Amino acid sequence: MNNYIEKLHWRYATKKFNPEKEVSEEDLETLLEAIRLSASSYGLQPYEVIVIKDPEVRAKLKPAAFSQPQITDASYLLVFAYNTNVDQAYVDKFIKSNADIRNKPEDEFKGLKDMIENSVLTFSEKKKEEWAARQAYIALGNLLSAAAHLEIDACPMEGFNPEEFDDLLDLKSKNLKSVALTTLGYRSGDDQLQKEKKVRKSKDELFTRI
Amino acid sequence: MNNYIEKLHWRYATKKFNPEKEVSEEDLETLLEAIRLSASSYGLQPYEVIVIKDPEVRAKLKPAAFSQPQITDASYLLVFAYNTNVDQAYVDKFIKSNADIRNKPEDEFKGLKDMIENSVLTFSEKKKEEWAARQAYIALGNLLSAAAHLEIDACPMEGFNPEEFDDLLDLKSKNLKSVALTTLGYRSGDDQLQKEKKVRKSKDELFTRI
Repeated sequence: MNNYIEKLHWRYATKKFNPEKEVSEEDLETLLEAIRLSASSYGLQPYEVIVIKDPEVRAKLKPAAFSQPQITDASYLLVFAYNTNVDQAYVDKFIKSNADIRNKPEDEFKGLKDMIENSVLTFSEKKKEEWAARQAYIALGNLLSAAAHLEIDACPMEGFNPEEFDDLLDLKSKNLKSVALTTLGYRSGDDQLQKEKKVRKSKDELFTRI
Repeated sequence: MNNYIEKLHWRYATKKFNPEKEVSEEDLETLLEAIRLSASSYGLQPYEVIVIKDPEVRAKLKPAAFSQPQITDASYLLVFAYNTNVDQAYVDKFIKSNADIRNKPEDEFKGLKDMIENSVLTFSEKKKEEWAARQAYIALGNLLSAAAHLEIDACPMEGFNPEEFDDLLDLKSKNLKSVALTTLGYRSGDDQLQKEKKVRKSKDELFTRI
């Protein structure tokens, strides 16, 4: 079996972490780099990630996430939050960044700029927020795979109160809205779930071949 | 540099495919298995994937995706479509599947069932559709990483008309709505984009450490 697939079998949504075993700074940097390199619509990356190690901050957030123990037992809590300010200024900055990084005049990115202005910038606020949140989920999917690849455990979570998280982390002032969480750490050896078979749709249920 | 990260640097949204070089059936199976093993909310996998090789079907879909050449030049076109029928029957079937695969009585999954009924099944139709679409994007993120891992090129796309795709693929009758596309194949050697530097937010822009 392919190694990538083996790692996906190894991973599971870890609820019970070993609080004694910490993700190294080096591994964390690799995982953050995986997030950073994730694909997104036009490359706009309309999200940010709050990476929380501070035990006090996590303890404060915990009640807003149904007091799930992994919030504080894992090494890190990552909060994915999408940008609510994808506007002309955001796009202008993005185009400037393209020109700077690729060492070309901004004019060369006029086609890209037009496409973004004629699509994303025409979206209603509601549609734009949905679009932005989805881009964060591409990064989330990539992060979960990257973590599995390093045999680091993760628990992706939607079970939390985004408004409370936004308040506690002062995200509104940064034009951000939280949309998903992931903890990172190492599974507890006595977590029975790690031994259970994966429950997934069968190939026939999930795929239609044409 | 970590190998996983190297592969992410290697990948880019390939617009120009080599129509002569085809993704093998074995590699395709690996990529579909990566999708199938992706994480999702409660494990509900509220989406399906239409895997299209048939050149005539792809030619028919092409105009509904701004006639982007990769639709027909790549080896495969994958259409991610979320389920619009995540209702009590869907959840009951999911719980039965848990019991069957793990060889346990359904009663053991009552806690899980209650959680789903008290969350997902209480969502408005609109919220449920957003939620379902996001789960598909986790799989999309994982697929892009898996493809990069095998050095297979991919072009994720939101630039298409979902209603037209749904009509042409008769997705409505299957309680599905298309939300994202990806082509799979091999890059053309003369595509200049593969040599360009990646444009990404800096670490400081993307991450806040607490």
